[in-house]
Amino acid sequence: MEQAQLEALLQQVASGKVAPEMASQQLKQEPIADLGFAQVDLDRKRRNGYPEVIYGAGKTAPQIIGIAQTLQQHEQPILITRLSAEKFQAVQATLLTATYYAEARCAVIGTPLPATDDSYIAVVTAGTSDIPVAEEAAITATTFGNRVERVYDVGVAGIQRLFNRLDVIRGAKVVIVIAGMEGALASVVGGLIDKPLIAVPTSIGYGTNFQGMTALLTMLNSCASGITVVNVDNGFGAAYSASMINHL
Amino acid sequence: MEQAQLEALLQQVASGKVAPEMASQQLKQEPIADLGFAQVDLDRKRRNGYPEVIYGAGKTAPQIIGIAQTLQQHEQPILITRLSAEKFQAVQATLLTATYYAEARCAVIGTPLPATDDSYIAVVTAGTSDIPVAEEAAITATTFGNRVERVYDVGVAGIQRLFNRLDVIRGAKVVIVIAGMEGALASVVGGLIDKPLIAVPTSIGYGTNFQGMTALLTMLNSCASGITVVNVDNGFGAAYSASMINHL
Amino acid sequence: MEQAQLEALLQQVASGKVAPEMASQQLKQEPIADLGFAQVDLDRKRRNGYPEVIYGAGKTAPQIIGIAQTLQQHEQPILITRLSAEKFQAVQATLLTATYYAEARCAVIGTPLPATDDSYIAVVTAGTSDIPVAEEAAITATTFGNRVERVYDVGVAGIQRLFNRLDVIRGAKVVIVIAGMEGALASVVGGLIDKPLIAVPTSIGYGTNFQGMTALLTMLNSCASGITVVNVDNGFGAAYSASMINHL
Amino acid sequence: MEQAQLEALLQQVASGKVAPEMASQQLKQEPIADLGFAQVDLDRKRRNGYPEVIYGAGKTAPQIIGIAQTLQQHEQPILITRLSAEKFQAVQATLLTATYYAEARCAVIGTPLPATDDSYIAVVTAGTSDIPVAEEAAITATTFGNRVERVYDVGVAGIQRLFNRLDVIRGAKVVIVIAGMEGALASVVGGLIDKPLIAVPTSIGYGTNFQGMTALLTMLNSCASGITVVNVDNGFGAAYSASMINHL
Amino acid sequence: MEQAQLEALLQQVASGKVAPEMASQQLKQEPIADLGFAQVDLDRKRRNGYPEVIYGAGKTAPQIIGIAQTLQQHEQPILITRLSAEKFQAVQATLLTATYYAEARCAVIGTPLPATDDSYIAVVTAGTSDIPVAEEAAITATTFGNRVERVYDVGVAGIQRLFNRLDVIRGAKVVIVIAGMEGALASVVGGLIDKPLIAVPTSIGYGTNFQGMTALLTMLNSCASGITVVNVDNGFGAAYSASMINHL
Amino acid sequence: MEQAQLEALLQQVASGKVAPEMASQQLKQEPIADLGFAQVDLDRKRRNGYPEVIYGAGKTAPQIIGIAQTLQQHEQPILITRLSAEKFQAVQATLLTATYYAEARCAVIGTPLPATDDSYIAVVTAGTSDIPVAEEAAITATTFGNRVERVYDVGVAGIQRLFNRLDVIRGAKVVIVIAGMEGALASVVGGLIDKPLIAVPTSIGYGTNFQGMTALLTMLNSCASGITVVNVDNGFGAAYSASMINHL
Amino acid sequence: MEQAQLEALLQQVASGKVAPEMASQQLKQEPIADLGFAQVDLDRKRRNGYPEVIYGAGKTAPQIIGIAQTLQQHEQPILITRLSAEKFQAVQATLLTATYYAEARCAVIGTPLPATDDSYIAVVTAGTSDIPVAEEAAITATTFGNRVERVYDVGVAGIQRLFNRLDVIRGAKVVIVIAGMEGALASVVGGLIDKPLIAVPTSIGYGTNFQGMTALLTMLNSCASGITVVNVDNGFGAAYSASMINHL
Amino acid sequence: MEQAQLEALLQQVASGKVAPEMASQQLKQEPIADLGFAQVDLDRKRRNGYPEVIYGAGKTAPQIIGIAQTLQQHEQPILITRLSAEKFQAVQATLLTATYYAEARCAVIGTPLPATDDSYIAVVTAGTSDIPVAEEAAITATTFGNRVERVYDVGVAGIQRLFNRLDVIRGAKVVIVIAGMEGALASVVGGLIDKPLIAVPTSIGYGTNFQGMTALLTMLNSCASGITVVNVDNGFGAAYSASMINHL
Repeated sequence: MEQAQLEALLQQVASGKVAPEMASQQLKQEPIADLGFAQVDLDRKRRNGYPEVIYGAGKTAPQIIGIAQTLQQHEQPILITRLSAEKFQAVQATLLTATYYAEARCAVIGTPLPATDDSYIAVVTAGTSDIPVAEEAAITATTFGNRVERVYDVGVAGIQRLFNRLDVIRGAKVVIVIAGMEGALASVVGGLIDKPLIAVPTSIGYGTNFQGMTALLTMLNSCASGITVVNVDNGFGAAYSASMINHL
Repeated sequence: MEQAQLEALLQQVASGKVAPEMASQQLKQEPIADLGFAQVDLDRKRRNGYPEVIYGAGKTAPQIIGIAQTLQQHEQPILITRLSAEKFQAVQATLLTATYYAEARCAVIGTPLPATDDSYIAVVTAGTSDIPVAEEAAITATTFGNRVERVYDVGVAGIQRLFNRLDVIRGAKVVIVIAGMEGALASVVGGLIDKPLIAVPTSIGYGTNFQGMTALLTMLNSCASGITVVNVDNGFGAAYSASMINHL
Repeated sequence: MEQAQLEALLQQVASGKVAPEMASQQLKQEPIADLGFAQVDLDRKRRNGYPEVIYGAGKTAPQIIGIAQTLQQHEQPILITRLSAEKFQAVQATLLTATYYAEARCAVIGTPLPATDDSYIAVVTAGTSDIPVAEEAAITATTFGNRVERVYDVGVAGIQRLFNRLDVIRGAKVVIVIAGMEGALASVVGGLIDKPLIAVPTSIGYGTNFQGMTALLTMLNSCASGITVVNVDNGFGAAYSASMINHL
Repeated sequence: MEQAQLEALLQQVASGKVAPEMASQQLKQEPIADLGFAQVDLDRKRRNGYPEVIYGAGKTAPQIIGIAQTLQQHEQPILITRLSAEKFQAVQATLLTATYYAEARCAVIGTPLPATDDSYIAVVTAGTSDIPVAEEAAITATTFGNRVERVYDVGVAGIQRLFNRLDVIRGAKVVIVIAGMEGALASVVGGLIDKPLIAVPTSIGYGTNFQGMTALLTMLNSCASGITVVNVDNGFGAAYSASMINHL
Repeated sequence: MEQAQLEALLQQVASGKVAPEMASQQLKQEPIADLGFAQVDLDRKRRNGYPEVIYGAGKTAPQIIGIAQTLQQHEQPILITRLSAEKFQAVQATLLTATYYAEARCAVIGTPLPATDDSYIAVVTAGTSDIPVAEEAAITATTFGNRVERVYDVGVAGIQRLFNRLDVIRGAKVVIVIAGMEGALASVVGGLIDKPLIAVPTSIGYGTNFQGMTALLTMLNSCASGITVVNVDNGFGAAYSASMINHL
Repeated sequence: MEQAQLEALLQQVASGKVAPEMASQQLKQEPIADLGFAQVDLDRKRRNGYPEVIYGAGKTAPQIIGIAQTLQQHEQPILITRLSAEKFQAVQATLLTATYYAEARCAVIGTPLPATDDSYIAVVTAGTSDIPVAEEAAITATTFGNRVERVYDVGVAGIQRLFNRLDVIRGAKVVIVIAGMEGALASVVGGLIDKPLIAVPTSIGYGTNFQGMTALLTMLNSCASGITVVNVDNGFGAAYSASMINHL
Repeated sequence: MEQAQLEALLQQVASGKVAPEMASQQLKQEPIADLGFAQVDLDRKRRNGYPEVIYGAGKTAPQIIGIAQTLQQHEQPILITRLSAEKFQAVQATLLTATYYAEARCAVIGTPLPATDDSYIAVVTAGTSDIPVAEEAAITATTFGNRVERVYDVGVAGIQRLFNRLDVIRGAKVVIVIAGMEGALASVVGGLIDKPLIAVPTSIGYGTNFQGMTALLTMLNSCASGITVVNVDNGFGAAYSASMINHL
Repeated sequence: MEQAQLEALLQQVASGKVAPEMASQQLKQEPIADLGFAQVDLDRKRRNGYPEVIYGAGKTAPQIIGIAQTLQQHEQPILITRLSAEKFQAVQATLLTATYYAEARCAVIGTPLPATDDSYIAVVTAGTSDIPVAEEAAITATTFGNRVERVYDVGVAGIQRLFNRLDVIRGAKVVIVIAGMEGALASVVGGLIDKPLIAVPTSIGYGTNFQGMTALLTMLNSCASGITVVNVDNGFGAAYSASMINHL
């Protein structure tokens, strides 16, 4: 409850329009749906700008369905991330309108928020293998009302590929750079643009790549400025922040 | 052998009631059942307050059955943790009265110790995915004679969910906080209560979560005081300590 | 503000005894002293059972003095941990009544809380080098109103030293075990007692000890049950939790 | 050289106004000042929005002076980060107008960019010990033309301190959260706001804090969305990105 | 575009033989084939000396086929590394002339470059289990036009095996040493030869081997000089560099 | 070739009994059987006291058979470690006399060396789950001519189990202590005996056990003296060294 | 108290020669001297074969003196390890007969145990920088009654240096190999001898050496058998075990 | 002794020109000077192509002088690396002709080998702070007879600086790329050249740079081919290998 609402409520109590017991009750109430296994946060969109997103990994299909049905009554659209194709089958049996994006491993229920801006988010990858993470970012951004431009496979081993697409990247309001292996692309792009850059390390690589730790460390230690970083393979998180920035 | 028992034995030797050879033998004897592959500790309940618990992982079904049968003749109830459903099938074929708690991956043989106290243990989780660890804690605590209150899915991303249930948490004699990902819930709860808090990191997360290491480190470095920590996913261990505290 | 207080306040508003603007103001007010560089928490004792403790490392002497003076007016006693002898000199120049415990690297201002219980906390170390951490624990526990029994240098390399003092350890309501190197003492003590045990790894050791990581890992993975763990060298934290348990 | 400039140049070549050798020379030229030990990038402000910043650590005072003098002739203001007080003495002997910010360990030469916006950046810390990193962020942001609001010492151990200042945080266009120890503040703030949040782990802590790694991991694994992260103690980097976002 | 080509182009523009728009277009063009999911680098052979190599892991069979077909029209031979037998089946269904090297997990399409030199590359392994990595190196080197001598299973546990084959190793122009476990072979060979040595750690081992990290660290810290190192199991990378050296 | 043999050979050359070319040839010859994929070391028994042992992991069944057949003609007995039951089936089809020890995952071909000593090796485990590693040690020791006494499941959680069997442990000439989880048993036994102790960490445990790293670190940092350590799960290596000591 | 002693005592109690209270007292008594900060173990020589050794690091000079004086009355010789020259000054002021070995950073009080054997321990180092650790081993071994042969600076970068001294190494009853950097010497020596080898990693190196971790990992993963390992820089521990083996 | 020499010697023995005892003696002799603390390898130049290099860290000045004097009589030039200015003072007092390169922390005694080639080694750094490592490489390469071209401070944050100097880099026979922070320069250069590239990570950076580990991992995981890596800050090692390649 915001300060303004609080003062209004108290005014109503003072003027006798609301009984103190009722006000007390109201203060205690929060827009939460209690499912036992989950406390669904129905206030997220008002508070954070976007509805609650369901992180599919580690939840059973019935749990996902329960949460989605609760959200469906209050907030739209519903995004489910890290959802395997198998689990999606079970979810869709109940939630008929859900759409699955296989490469992104996401499902969406309801209409995406309108892409109101002229501005767009560029989603850039170093390699072909980074595309699943990029698609998670792209679907998230689209669902949350952003235009997205994809620039895939422009890693530094053939740097002319990057320069070839540089105008698309420079035209974005915010840039997401997604790279595995050594993740050097983030630094190179960061040195060429004047917009915020969110870097996503991916777990693509082997040996001392350590499932993405190398790319993560590269991005955290970039000699270029203006780069912030999210967790390994966290395309969703990057798109969430990028969407916030794009909507400013 | 306790000091008091020892002195009594020596008195009997001194008075000739017990021959020295017999006393020596008696001193050497310990309440241990030797199964070859296991030395079953039959003195645990007297010494530590609870009967020996069987850690199911890394033991074969016949080994588990052998140990459980030995314990059954001396101590009750028997708790088997980290027991897969498959292995439970094999165990139950012999030990007919065993009950399985699938979410907690535990089996119990015999009657739980009586929940003598008015006081209770609160088992709190940050998310839905942490529930299996929470159930391991809850079943352990119940088996060892404690009332348990479950407060699930109140993580800090929607902190009003926590405040909504704060009275249940504050009412406990000891609180177990179970969280994966970044594990911040332990610090927030720790700053709001005046009771001992046992934090359990879970392996829920991905990338730099490192199978629970991040939550563990968060909990060990909490800026709130009054927090102690157990191993990743160790719901059993947290409940064991909490039970000791609750029975003080 | 507790629910009861809130309802009382609202009643007063309803009856016209308190103006809504004033109630709103009151709801916003929190018992915090704003020093600019610090928001001193004056509600800690009521909320957590103990007054705020000043962590001396990383604060300048003027900052420590400022916080201590603020606390002094509201809560007693004041404990300052991780305080070097040099910094204490500067602090004492202003806060004349402060007492310094050199081995524990702590200062105390004001009278310790009364040690009301018959029960006591046992503070046990594996070696002589672990004593500074043990003293931090002992001073903390004493300041917060507990009787303390010290059992030092009873590590497992000469296990008869431990058995020799086992009755003192078994007599405690809660036991703190402090060990560096491989930290095995916690497991051995844990297997011999029926009280909660809080283990403190210390940074004593070299090479693969990794400044206490080895002892920490040992304690987290103990085959004995009933052990919870705090951060490396965190004698204060162990004593804080132990004090909570001892006062139950 | 941008595409538009290139085409213009080529037109001039085609029309005979520019000889091909000269055009080739011009294409090769870049706005770089070669000092031998440094290739000073004089194109940074045009390309990235801000002039080149001098990272003081690992450079000698003469190297810093050389670079600063070169920049001074082309771009303003000049920011020098990670500059010890000793090294600043030597720098100031030559560069008389340099100003030193001791807590931030930064020097500035020339006038800060004008703070054109109504919007501001909130710089939030968990503790008093995090202030030096916060000041590096604040000085950077101010130098690069942003209004800054400081909210210090509102960590989660006394969460009411945070709620007390929440309106200032919510009013910002972008929020920087700076925390050491377990770094939980980022998650809690992230769950309460609808603006981009840049989290800065600090190296404040001990033992398993691992010089800031714990806070870093916490922030990367936050259960709250909309959080991106920079390197440990990298107040500069956070402010650089925040400034980009604030100027959108 | 090289400087010489650029000047020629500009001359043509100056003389009116090429219109500026066309020159601009030409400058922008790069020898890249855009497949959407991949930007195939058709300039690699000219720029780096060898055609682009397809890293099979993390790419689908259709992606591999698409890239290979594109390359096939421009550059030969095509090497596909980290290709499972299953994926090769799918690839070969379309690309009929592809040859699979099962132990090396590589496929080759087209004729290897001619092995023009008298000189050869020695591929040396410590054990039998290291042979798959060695074969990846050997197939790569052969495909890129090098004679290869294999010296397998000459690890230091039976050092006379090494001395027995030392003449073959000493006769090479560049030596690749491949070892798992503790990787000591690289140091011993390095101390006995006067040619460049490229060391490849393998993931053979268990426990504290950490999937090849031990061998990697050994090789990076060798007391012998003249050793450079590649990633764990990176037989391809070692052979690529060795081929560059062998062709000098 | 030993110095004495060398001088004899040279004497023969000097006296004309051996032609220099032949001597040269002889000096070059080493007792190695070259199988291409393996250089079988036929000199191991003379040089190291035991015949070459075949490490089964990472070798194919045909490779194992090839090596074993070569060894069979020269040295006995043949020990194959880390051999899965499946691979053993394939091996036994050719090598009919091979015997498999399932728990130890070892096969033996030929008669064990005679257990000539009165002395014995004690193989001690902390838990039931450590028995497979212990059996690898026991079979190795038996094959190499040692009497073995097994003392299983005497971990420190019930320390009286250890004291109960202490006489058997103290009677050994060398003691192997095998423990997972926190591995504290090694320190406790080390403090109670006056014989060399070889500690084997096992990968039994979960979470921060890190597949045996915790037990390894414990053993390396033991406060008890006289303990040396081998790799995680390396029962073979411990028995090999213990056998060397037992045969002194 | 040994079983034989116990039975004798019980006989005396039975025959009335010893009162039960006295027997109980005697059973409780242990040969420990309680100094408050230390429980000096006076039973070590009988139980473990050697008197207690004082680990000087982390103890104050008065603590060292107190322990040494206590030991001096019961056991000889006294070895103090990890003793800085400064601390030795303070110790020697009281304990006049103490001798300091600067390179080994050890002090000895009293006469070394007689070197009764014909056999000797070989102490082998890879480099000159490893000598301090080697001297700690050599002084320890000498003090505990062993003949020592030093073979220094024979690392594998110039392997003929090792072969040149191989006869001295092969003549030993037990070999200590001490190496930093990559630690490969242990594997090479291990492949050439038939005696137990104790490997000591040293912290000599830089970068990815990680203060000796690389050498430690090398030694734990050696492809040669018969190698056991101690902690980084633990010359004392290696010599202690070697002495046990040499005295068998 | 080479095979050819051996056969010649044996021929002499056969023909009676050399007595067998003398031949035996000769075979045993190795060109090693035994200084007790060091076995100076006088055969290095013949065997490895370069004289032995003295690693100054961890050696005392007298040890360095002793080794240098021994080498001086046999091989030239003498290179001493990792030599502090203080230690150099002491060395130069005896070895008057030694020259010190302060930035490289190296000393050279005697005349560098002649730079016979037209070809040169390019030494490239990302930043100004990497220059000390680059100078160690440059001095090493010069001493060992190579022409060196320095290209400093061309990191990817301002990538046009690199393109500006690309012709110098492309003209080299072998390229050394030296970078700290995230080390991305190696990948970018690797993608632009067709010559062997040796990458040197430096310890420049802070926080998650982990003293150069980040740059090391980046280089090991580079998406560009033809890159091999040496230890952190190992300018010497890179130059040693580069010199071998340059002299092919």
